[in-house]
Amino acid sequence: MDAKLDYLLRQGDNALILSQQLCKLCGKGPALEEDMALANVALDLLGQTRMWLTYAAELEGLGRSEDHLAYLRDAHQMRCCLIVEQPNGDYGFTLMRQFLFDSWHYFLMQGLTKSSDPRIAEIAEKSLKEVTYHLRRSGDLVVRLGDGTPDSRQRMQSALDALWPYSGEMFIYDDIDNQMVAQGVAPAAAGLRASFLEHVSEILAEATLAMPPADAWMQQGGKVGKHSEHLGYTLAEMQFLQRAYPGADW
Amino acid sequence: MDAKLDYLLRQGDNALILSQQLCKLCGKGPALEEDMALANVALDLLGQTRMWLTYAAELEGLGRSEDHLAYLRDAHQMRCCLIVEQPNGDYGFTLMRQFLFDSWHYFLMQGLTKSSDPRIAEIAEKSLKEVTYHLRRSGDLVVRLGDGTPDSRQRMQSALDALWPYSGEMFIYDDIDNQMVAQGVAPAAAGLRASFLEHVSEILAEATLAMPPADAWMQQGGKVGKHSEHLGYTLAEMQFLQRAYPGADW
Repeated sequence: MDAKLDYLLRQGDNALILSQQLCKLCGKGPALEEDMALANVALDLLGQTRMWLTYAAELEGLGRSEDHLAYLRDAHQMRCCLIVEQPNGDYGFTLMRQFLFDSWHYFLMQGLTKSSDPRIAEIAEKSLKEVTYHLRRSGDLVVRLGDGTPDSRQRMQSALDALWPYSGEMFIYDDIDNQMVAQGVAPAAAGLRASFLEHVSEILAEATLAMPPADAWMQQGGKVGKHSEHLGYTLAEMQFLQRAYPGADW
Repeated sequence: MDAKLDYLLRQGDNALILSQQLCKLCGKGPALEEDMALANVALDLLGQTRMWLTYAAELEGLGRSEDHLAYLRDAHQMRCCLIVEQPNGDYGFTLMRQFLFDSWHYFLMQGLTKSSDPRIAEIAEKSLKEVTYHLRRSGDLVVRLGDGTPDSRQRMQSALDALWPYSGEMFIYDDIDNQMVAQGVAPAAAGLRASFLEHVSEILAEATLAMPPADAWMQQGGKVGKHSEHLGYTLAEMQFLQRAYPGADW
């Protein structure tokens, strides 16, 4: 497969699956304000998905649409990182997953605004405005709940410990990522990782949470289609309509 | 639709959906013995599903198979009672749902062994052996947990109270059921209901649980395709393979 096409699918699938995960919480947030915020983040991510997958479909040139790519690929064809497919868990878990994702997402989008591919630079520019807000929001809440009650603190620490091994896959570059770097399409891993670790450690310190070692062993596989069992359940739910009524439209 | 065809779908869909619900618990039972028992009941019900839906497909005469009927009908086309689609909840809830279902299922199968349709009588005969065991098992456990610790007793009572409004739909006969009775295919509601209430009240008394009033308001709609939201999620999961890979076989 064309490296750039695969790279676009990775971006689109991360946004798509995390959006779907947050959609599951619609109407179930711990407070009205929070419920709306989660749904808004989900909507932003779905909009970003659309931009990435539309470009991917064009590049693929097989006449498939962004809907086709989103709703008719099975798990082994999805290119999202493992972190976005981890189940929502409690609210602290959802929030910590979001914070770790946002911290990476923010610096990646920032890097992609300087992409040698003008279309990618444009998508990143549009996304960055939303992602800046996502990151501020999730960081604020991590601080509030980490430096909160003993119970909230303990939950945030548990979530962090459980999610930490999923916070490295984005920085483990493979052939596809490396080709993108070589072509000036994507930023290098080292710089992204340094910015990520700096920001995350700052917020976690403020939240009085203990950051696991940066060089801990990291899970990987999602980017090349090796997913946890969770993704299949998410796809079954997300894709039911297009699977049951192929080509459905309104 | 032919009344008998619809009646067969009702039988098949009850067994199919309850089987799928129990399958979700495979590997998650509260004890190894119990885990295997739940999976075995699920398997029995799936075997019964196959008999009912195979006959239904033959009667329909459209060249569809039992797999087609199980995996390619959407929620509004499913004819199961609402009780079987209620979420598993805790183990007490799963068990109480099973007990109420088994109590009805047992007397219905007993009645159907005398059906004027020899094929139905034969399926009921085969099923009855399994269902007899299901009912003995779930009744025993209801007694053990109802007449158990304060916590287990309270959970069983909560489950009973929550499920009771779903225990009447099977006895509310509509046109289709009445046609089946008139043709000697199915047993009348009154006798079934009396046997059901007698058995259930006996077991609940032994379990020291308070039985809600027999004339309580009852939920209905499943038999005519008006389902709770839960069924859609169950179908999405259950039907993914056939939806994603139509005609898949092995």
